[in-house]
Amino acid sequence: MSAADKLKNIRIVLCGTVHPANIGAAARAMKTMGLARLCLVAPVRFPDPQAEWLASGAIDVLQRARVCADLDEALRDVVFSVACTARTRELAVPMVTAREAAARVVPLARDGPVALVFGNETYGLTGEEAGKCRLLATIPADSRYSSLNLAAAVQVFCYELRQAATGDRAPDTKNAAPAPHQEIERFLDHLERMAIETGFLNPKHPKRLMPRLRRLFSRARLEKEEVSILRGLIETLRHPKSRSKPRA
Amino acid sequence: MSAADKLKNIRIVLCGTVHPANIGAAARAMKTMGLARLCLVAPVRFPDPQAEWLASGAIDVLQRARVCADLDEALRDVVFSVACTARTRELAVPMVTAREAAARVVPLARDGPVALVFGNETYGLTGEEAGKCRLLATIPADSRYSSLNLAAAVQVFCYELRQAATGDRAPDTKNAAPAPHQEIERFLDHLERMAIETGFLNPKHPKRLMPRLRRLFSRARLEKEEVSILRGLIETLRHPKSRSKPRA
Repeated sequence: MSAADKLKNIRIVLCGTVHPANIGAAARAMKTMGLARLCLVAPVRFPDPQAEWLASGAIDVLQRARVCADLDEALRDVVFSVACTARTRELAVPMVTAREAAARVVPLARDGPVALVFGNETYGLTGEEAGKCRLLATIPADSRYSSLNLAAAVQVFCYELRQAATGDRAPDTKNAAPAPHQEIERFLDHLERMAIETGFLNPKHPKRLMPRLRRLFSRARLEKEEVSILRGLIETLRHPKSRSKPRA
Repeated sequence: MSAADKLKNIRIVLCGTVHPANIGAAARAMKTMGLARLCLVAPVRFPDPQAEWLASGAIDVLQRARVCADLDEALRDVVFSVACTARTRELAVPMVTAREAAARVVPLARDGPVALVFGNETYGLTGEEAGKCRLLATIPADSRYSSLNLAAAVQVFCYELRQAATGDRAPDTKNAAPAPHQEIERFLDHLERMAIETGFLNPKHPKRLMPRLRRLFSRARLEKEEVSILRGLIETLRHPKSRSKPRA
């Protein structure tokens, strides 16, 4: 099952959003993480050119956004719902972090639509709205200033949903062939020989030079081609190809 | 050690930001996660009322922001730096996720300032800017539309930093002092100069030698003392202390 499939049943619900710019920015945040279903409960201004401007390449998410009169309408067909809030509430529902919420939501979304519900910019969700959801989730923030911008909060939740759907995989970086053990050993021998030859390393008092260099190049996890480059480089430093005289 | 202490050495560097609104929104994103140090490299418009409007309760972060003429100035005193980018590059440094980057950065920030570097809204970081950083990090996004808004990307990275700082993970083993940015740059300059002098590197056809060496030594995360050793070593290979004749 692809990440797109796992995320396609997840709906972002924004309640009573005041600034259309935040709706646009939320649409963009969703699309970057592979979410497409936006539901607007009684937005103050929508549609609006500002929303489109901030949506950037996610205009399609705005265009397909559903506008509902109230939260009940937005939640009618869901199998699960999460109230996303900055405030701790004395409510009947349990409170988890955004990361925990994502881990719960993604498997549930296989069975049907799931909603993440956000309140308006100034007040967040009302107690009544939060009470309609099955779980309360929050983004752990600095207690001295925990007020994330609405679209920024949508970004973090959508990011965690995608992480949960893809299983925290590193991006595909092409790894070059690692250097075989023996080639690294030969390079280190070469380096040691030249360090002795030039007087940088005194074999009678080697101190910890070679162990230190070993440690450094082990940490680097050398690639095959890099070993050739390094050997060519030290050889050429020692025996220049060009005619320029040593400055000494 | 509190989360605030763990995060206080982490600097967010924004390069060439065009829209002041994004600077303000980034400041707000930082403050919600407990980060306070903002550095602006050649911002197009700053200070600006729009930045203040979007900063909301994080005006203090804007007011204490440092403005630098170029990235070198912003990185001068750092012990580690991360290029935050949406693009996969054929460059310089290894690529990790935002989460992995945060896990690495938080322990390193005990030893001195660490920078997370973001490019401008339209083009992101240039290859040259990214090449000056020790690690490349990306927010895993939908490949069909991976363009996060600048402040949204700052929000996700700062969120992961806070998660890393507050998460209960195994204590890190004590590391030797990492080499400051400038010492690594000087070492690489030194190496390049000598490679040119000896004919190993043809400056007219440099191919990818220096980017490859940068990548290798970034991966190794050089320590301060190792840089001295390497510089002493290459200098001695080039200009031997002992009298022994080159074998050629």
